[in-house]
Amino acid sequence: MIGRKLVARLRKDGVGELLQQDVVPFADGIVSDLSTPGEAEKLVAKRPDLIFHLAAVVSGEAEADFEKGYRVNLDGTRYLFEAIRREGGKAGGGYKPKVVFTSSIAVFGAPFPDAIGDEFLSAPLTSYGTQKAISELLLSDYSRRGFFDGVGIRLPTICVRPGKPNKAASGFFSGILREPLAGQEAVLPVPDTVRHWFASPRAAIQFLMHASQINTERLGTRRNLSMPGIAATIGEEIEALRRVAGDQAVRLIRRVPDPTIMRIVDGWPRNFAARRALELGFRPDPSFDDIIRYHMEDELR
Amino acid sequence: MIGRKLVARLRKDGVGELLQQDVVPFADGIVSDLSTPGEAEKLVAKRPDLIFHLAAVVSGEAEADFEKGYRVNLDGTRYLFEAIRREGGKAGGGYKPKVVFTSSIAVFGAPFPDAIGDEFLSAPLTSYGTQKAISELLLSDYSRRGFFDGVGIRLPTICVRPGKPNKAASGFFSGILREPLAGQEAVLPVPDTVRHWFASPRAAIQFLMHASQINTERLGTRRNLSMPGIAATIGEEIEALRRVAGDQAVRLIRRVPDPTIMRIVDGWPRNFAARRALELGFRPDPSFDDIIRYHMEDELR
Repeated sequence: MIGRKLVARLRKDGVGELLQQDVVPFADGIVSDLSTPGEAEKLVAKRPDLIFHLAAVVSGEAEADFEKGYRVNLDGTRYLFEAIRREGGKAGGGYKPKVVFTSSIAVFGAPFPDAIGDEFLSAPLTSYGTQKAISELLLSDYSRRGFFDGVGIRLPTICVRPGKPNKAASGFFSGILREPLAGQEAVLPVPDTVRHWFASPRAAIQFLMHASQINTERLGTRRNLSMPGIAATIGEEIEALRRVAGDQAVRLIRRVPDPTIMRIVDGWPRNFAARRALELGFRPDPSFDDIIRYHMEDELR
Repeated sequence: MIGRKLVARLRKDGVGELLQQDVVPFADGIVSDLSTPGEAEKLVAKRPDLIFHLAAVVSGEAEADFEKGYRVNLDGTRYLFEAIRREGGKAGGGYKPKVVFTSSIAVFGAPFPDAIGDEFLSAPLTSYGTQKAISELLLSDYSRRGFFDGVGIRLPTICVRPGKPNKAASGFFSGILREPLAGQEAVLPVPDTVRHWFASPRAAIQFLMHASQINTERLGTRRNLSMPGIAATIGEEIEALRRVAGDQAVRLIRRVPDPTIMRIVDGWPRNFAARRALELGFRPDPSFDDIIRYHMEDELR
């Protein structure tokens, strides 16, 4: 979803030749598996100036399939980084692309301070978060060694995520907005007091674009940044929905407490102090109301 | 060095059958390379109850040889962890050893707070530190998933390190004590104001033994601990040497400023608040004077 929107944005901005790759077949793209040795080399041989790496296996799947998560999210990322390093080491040399890597707030695990600052440890509570945290460390080391010029951005939970409901534990954060806005019922498995950290798809694309343009000398050796978001409780989400779409939308939310989901959500970050990213010019959504309006403008028209 | 002293301690305590492995030939041990696929499986097939993993390539070498550092320190560690996971997944199952992993304060990189607390981020400034930080994340995830019961201990800089100088850039911290105590000249490449974090070999062995014995339920999901040490400046080291061995020892220290070493050392931790480790019963050396006395007792008699 982010990849599709990013490509549309890059096309609109007219960035020159665009090379797309995914493991699943799609229009205009190279279909290959970065976690297969040798595949990353084929892509990197074309020497792209700018690489967005949006990998890959989501948290639920990485938790259910331990080997697949490590193979795709860790080995795949490392193969890509190694391919860049080796390309730069070839006769002629001089290849040092910008690499923008999407990390996640899943690199953090409870217990948390009130707001997670830029110096808080990565202690993930999922294999997915572990794979992202390891990739962040590699990104910083490869950048420090001069093999490429990397920026890692820790995306907040994307909301409103377009498309159909899925089985992701975090699905309800979007579902309680997306389904009512489409006139359908949505299930809310957690209490109204649950607080979480959000960015719209528009903000996410803007983070990626800004990351590709900032002067990385300002980052120093710490190449990974928590992105600014909106901290909102479920209650605040619902009130924003009421303001934007009225009581009839809110009435479509059905409360069905689920202790299993509640337990998972308890380990998730709630709020950040994303000072470094703000100083570097990354901007959060203006309000949760806007997050809902963007969804209506971009997906429902 | 730590391995040799640990084995002596384990023999003294009479822990039962001891299986030793190293990449270099030594008495009573298996010689193999853990970074060669398949070698870890051979060791783990014997199902040791307790595994001390003291890898491996030191910081200077991992910085000089990028590929070797990642192969030995990262891949070697991962092969070991994977071998344990696969052994536990075999018919019969039930294999879940305790794993004590020696990490390092090199997982931290400047800028630092006055004292590095238990929630400070890992932002290493060396490839060695990156490899240790990644191994820590793997240790926590493999423990969380129940594949083994891991404890990672971040050793302070070991002082006085016996024997000959190695390739570590930190060598002078021990050298300015060890060489004068043996009647030899030592070179000091940094100013007296440089502050660093130390533990004796005795304390290090005690950390490893204690880590093998603590109830890991008290660790929760955060399996890696900064060990308590002694924060001392070079000036304080020298005054301790004067108290223990007199002016004639101190006169053997020759000041030869080295900007390269100074730049490396500038990125190193100086002081810690190792609260979790202290709460869990890990104990630092009583004083820097004792650190020097232990060396004289253990190595010079």
